[in-house]
Amino acid sequence: MTVITLLTDFGLRDGYPGVMKGVILNIAPDVKIADICHNILPQDIRQGALILARTANFFPDGTIHVAVVDPGVGTSRRPIGLHLDNQFFIGPDNGLFTMVLEQAENNLEHVQVVHLTESRYWLPEVSHVFHGRDIFSPCAAHLATGISLNMMGTAINDPVRLFIQKPVQNEGGGISGHVVEIDSFGNISTDIVESDIRKFRDLEVVVAGHHINGLVPTFGARPTGSLVALIGTSHELMIAIVNGDAAKTCHISVGDPIDLLPRAAEQR
Amino acid sequence: MTVITLLTDFGLRDGYPGVMKGVILNIAPDVKIADICHNILPQDIRQGALILARTANFFPDGTIHVAVVDPGVGTSRRPIGLHLDNQFFIGPDNGLFTMVLEQAENNLEHVQVVHLTESRYWLPEVSHVFHGRDIFSPCAAHLATGISLNMMGTAINDPVRLFIQKPVQNEGGGISGHVVEIDSFGNISTDIVESDIRKFRDLEVVVAGHHINGLVPTFGARPTGSLVALIGTSHELMIAIVNGDAAKTCHISVGDPIDLLPRAAEQR
Amino acid sequence: MTVITLLTDFGLRDGYPGVMKGVILNIAPDVKIADICHNILPQDIRQGALILARTANFFPDGTIHVAVVDPGVGTSRRPIGLHLDNQFFIGPDNGLFTMVLEQAENNLEHVQVVHLTESRYWLPEVSHVFHGRDIFSPCAAHLATGISLNMMGTAINDPVRLFIQKPVQNEGGGISGHVVEIDSFGNISTDIVESDIRKFRDLEVVVAGHHINGLVPTFGARPTGSLVALIGTSHELMIAIVNGDAAKTCHISVGDPIDLLPRAAEQR
Repeated sequence: MTVITLLTDFGLRDGYPGVMKGVILNIAPDVKIADICHNILPQDIRQGALILARTANFFPDGTIHVAVVDPGVGTSRRPIGLHLDNQFFIGPDNGLFTMVLEQAENNLEHVQVVHLTESRYWLPEVSHVFHGRDIFSPCAAHLATGISLNMMGTAINDPVRLFIQKPVQNEGGGISGHVVEIDSFGNISTDIVESDIRKFRDLEVVVAGHHINGLVPTFGARPTGSLVALIGTSHELMIAIVNGDAAKTCHISVGDPIDLLPRAAEQR
Repeated sequence: MTVITLLTDFGLRDGYPGVMKGVILNIAPDVKIADICHNILPQDIRQGALILARTANFFPDGTIHVAVVDPGVGTSRRPIGLHLDNQFFIGPDNGLFTMVLEQAENNLEHVQVVHLTESRYWLPEVSHVFHGRDIFSPCAAHLATGISLNMMGTAINDPVRLFIQKPVQNEGGGISGHVVEIDSFGNISTDIVESDIRKFRDLEVVVAGHHINGLVPTFGARPTGSLVALIGTSHELMIAIVNGDAAKTCHISVGDPIDLLPRAAEQR
Repeated sequence: MTVITLLTDFGLRDGYPGVMKGVILNIAPDVKIADICHNILPQDIRQGALILARTANFFPDGTIHVAVVDPGVGTSRRPIGLHLDNQFFIGPDNGLFTMVLEQAENNLEHVQVVHLTESRYWLPEVSHVFHGRDIFSPCAAHLATGISLNMMGTAINDPVRLFIQKPVQNEGGGISGHVVEIDSFGNISTDIVESDIRKFRDLEVVVAGHHINGLVPTFGARPTGSLVALIGTSHELMIAIVNGDAAKTCHISVGDPIDLLPRAAEQR
């Protein structure tokens, strides 16, 4: 039984994700539908790309991920389908798949991208404003019933990619990165990855003027209210306040700089 | 495998929709449950009726829609089940089904309404405050297992209907309608429908003192920040700000007037 | 087809519940996943315990409930699995299962608690910060595939329990209890139970300086705006404002005192 996931910025107030489920079940009654998230910030393609990349690979082989953060709906931006390793992705060609594409390429996995042009796999009537319902959901459902991605359009090799800022070496001999996500606890996720962090025996993290000495293994290693740095849910540097909201307390937003600096052991 | 959908004003904080799923799966383990929306504004029967009507028909034949916006729970208001064309609806008789009923009647479809009186299809113990759990979910689940709607009560022909204001012709030769819904993007949905709009070669939309010339095909047809009018997700006149929140920016609420006026081509 | 439910404080913004669904479906493709609630207040173990206890028993026999409100994730707090009567519970040993345990014990039901130590039933790689994904979801999924709870670890008999304040008799000959939950309507749920309330022929409820005479059968028994007391969704004393928000209007929070006082019939 194929799994189809949904990730959108539609919110949960208006029934838009519900409509997509109706369309899918109408075409492919046997699929399992799993919501990943419908609260991507409105039109925030970068956030959608990040959460999709951190989530998709936990799903089974064959899973079809429908992702819709689509400010360009109804314009000339292309609807696309991707076959990456052994999962599928359907959505707008606006950069939303940048990170899953990059992951697949870095892992030398199978990569196929198709411009979805075959309207017989869409709803009979296609609006200019809701391709999540009219194009992406039906294509995902037809894929689940066994139609091959090839049949749905034309192969392309130039999917739109977001420019993603990468961490750089800083003058202090450490790494300067960025806040990439703030979760509902107020935990701050960054683009500095565990493998880079592990190069330093002792380190200091600087965020919004706060200096944090070393990493803790987990939240509960310090008393409530402590500002801590640790390895987060996706092998990344995370900043948190134990049982508190680090982003609010430290006035941190996505895009803000994070500096990691080496410390000599004797400094401790 | 029958689909049962849920639409309520219960919110997602308290586990009430979760309880309904438990009750349903206990009686009908094989159904698929799909959430349409649990964030209908508290007690806002009109909003529930609208979102239900815009969503239901995208689901497969045989789908059973459980809708619960129920300020009169436990009073003499009747629990009802409806068979409209080839879908079913279960919930309180308070007007929540006004629009799906009207759709079915306009399409000359099969219409059957039953007052749910047979308590053997309810939970053994029925509270006065949570018929979503105690009456509606079990009736929907029994329906999914093959019990006929007829068996669950007595046919009635006087379901409660909301008074729904309709757009009218205005003095300028155009149409005056109303805001009927504001989605989580701040897009403004109205009761003026595409078929009426298409009668005008050139038109102007007036909303809260703002004048919008003509329709655009979709959001991305204008730069970020533009106030635009377009055909929305349900064939209706929609007002939006490109990548912005039209309702907040223009201080618009549900019920506010919207005027569509014809424009001579030379005025453009 | 086994049902696995999810109850967490992860919120619906970040995809964390989505990841858990991926992990589960990867191991146990045939299960049905039902969300109970992901909006438990951050780290509020007591609220999680209450909503779990009010929800779980509406699910079918054999249901596996994964509950994750886990401020101590990655510390020495134990991951546990419980077999209570004919349902299963998986999560952190921090008191989250206090109320379902107590219910099972009060009903003299089967109680088995296992410290989940067998890492072969976890994800191959276990983080210190997301055991919902790395330990609890995989254990639940393996349980659904037929692995016995016994196999997953060591029996224990000292699961952590929250101290839950109980209502007491007050000087007026009535009962003094507490607000235990405020739902999204603003309805106030208390720890005073129906069986205690029924002992009084006539009664008065005192909450935040407001005096309410007697119980009403349901919300709609009084005009909009009335402050009323009634039997709530879980056989408990509930305080509400008809079509309004009692908690906001009366400035009531969880933990606040509620007094129930007997009234002589002639006082009415």
